Amino acid sequence: MIDGKTKLIPHIGYPTESFKAPMIYNPWFESRGINAIVAPFAVQGADFPDVLKSLFRCGNVIGALITMPHKVAVTKLVDELTVTAQIAGSANAVVRRPDGSLVGDMFDGEGFARGVLRKGQEIKGKKVLVVGSGGVGCAIAASLAAAGAAEMGLFDPATASAQGLADRLTTHYPALKVSVGSKDPAGFDIVVNATPLGMKAGDPLPMDVERLAPTTFVGEVVMKEEHTPFLRAAIERGCRTQVGTDMLFEMIPAYLEFFGFGSTTAEELRAIARLQY
Amino acid sequence: MIDGKTKLIPHIGYPTESFKAPMIYNPWFESRGINAIVAPFAVQGADFPDVLKSLFRCGNVIGALITMPHKVAVTKLVDELTVTAQIAGSANAVVRRPDGSLVGDMFDGEGFARGVLRKGQEIKGKKVLVVGSGGVGCAIAASLAAAGAAEMGLFDPATASAQGLADRLTTHYPALKVSVGSKDPAGFDIVVNATPLGMKAGDPLPMDVERLAPTTFVGEVVMKEEHTPFLRAAIERGCRTQVGTDMLFEMIPAYLEFFGFGSTTAEELRAIARLQY
Repeated sequence: MIDGKTKLIPHIGYPTESFKAPMIYNPWFESRGINAIVAPFAVQGADFPDVLKSLFRCGNVIGALITMPHKVAVTKLVDELTVTAQIAGSANAVVRRPDGSLVGDMFDGEGFARGVLRKGQEIKGKKVLVVGSGGVGCAIAASLAAAGAAEMGLFDPATASAQGLADRLTTHYPALKVSVGSKDPAGFDIVVNATPLGMKAGDPLPMDVERLAPTTFVGEVVMKEEHTPFLRAAIERGCRTQVGTDMLFEMIPAYLEFFGFGSTTAEELRAIARLQY
Repeated sequence: MIDGKTKLIPHIGYPTESFKAPMIYNPWFESRGINAIVAPFAVQGADFPDVLKSLFRCGNVIGALITMPHKVAVTKLVDELTVTAQIAGSANAVVRRPDGSLVGDMFDGEGFARGVLRKGQEIKGKKVLVVGSGGVGCAIAASLAAAGAAEMGLFDPATASAQGLADRLTTHYPALKVSVGSKDPAGFDIVVNATPLGMKAGDPLPMDVERLAPTTFVGEVVMKEEHTPFLRAAIERGCRTQVGTDMLFEMIPAYLEFFGFGSTTAEELRAIARLQY
């Protein structure tokens, strides 16, 4: 129950109607007796800098979740960015340190990587292919690099964005072997669709699934349905897979640690969330 | 349950710990299936102008409740003030009109007046005494004038504030007969303690209760206990009375109308509020 001592985590984006975070975080806060809420704030681009600054002047605003269209803009508005957010070029969470400074971090990729690890698939020393170098692709690449991937293939129809990501990765992880320009999944241990392909009926598959080895772990970011055509094709070939919403639920324990709350698991969050996938 | 479509009514003040509005409004919204919440925002004086402006740039912020220490400052930050807020010299609610303009209103006095009327005590044509010309006293005087009081006695140890209130009242209500400087309740139909006397044990009574006629209706603003020593003395003399929290609950239906929600009663709000008085 909201009272005068409730801590706030604004969830800032536009539009807000499809937000899911309040229905995941708030039941968890309730279940733990934590007096905090996530609430939507519908903020358009031009207003975002002032609103973000003002919200963090409120004593009981302890952090913020940042989503479209502000994930890139927020990187210019915080005092510090984690390495992952620097490589991703975007942030989806801001927390205020005790000294008042704001730190931005990016958890999309962290959620993806946690899910992979918790399914028993190692990342350290592995070869990974990330198809799509938009916001989520950059975030996933950054987190897979942080988790110790040895080689990384990047592909995006906009080659410059894949090359930019490659450059940022090698700046921060000089030992990482990065290649750009192929989406052939053959020879990779982990393969990720980080494109929007699969959102619309009739979309082509994001890569040539015939070239997937059954030993390859296949991850998806599209949440339109639990098993997208790409994931169904991968399962048919015997691959282990990770669905799009796993990234969402797996990132939340990381968020909660970032905001200074206790630890939890994606399973617990899924069990008490007030939404269905 | 908060989701992406939830409307927000920030309750802005500092400190926020003792706020009661969230526990009154939110259960009512829930009971009516209205997807809106009141949530506290701890904002200090210097930050208030920017925070207020920024909050109203959020599309789902439909209004705000304003409390200490911002009730006076807010009057300079809105596009329009109601007559009651002009006379009160303060506002405790802001709503955004469809054209984007902000309107400030003051409901403390409206709550007081509604409570009096609903107890069967007429205000129109009556003689009222308001002891205390601080924020709440000014608000009550403004609302009693709006409700048609014929004569009004004002008293404050700081005579200038009582005189300032008298001047504002006569500007807007030239037919109202206002006198300043006496707190003798004899001869008044309605008498109000709008001072903080009664908050602390051992406080003197706000006026000479021996001079209260049994026909006088006696109202209180102090909420420290349901029946303050002043109210107990009035009841002993046979007066009808109104307790401090009545003002709080009676103003909320007015607020809710101001924010564009349906109508309710203080009784319904008291029944479902998640707090005890």
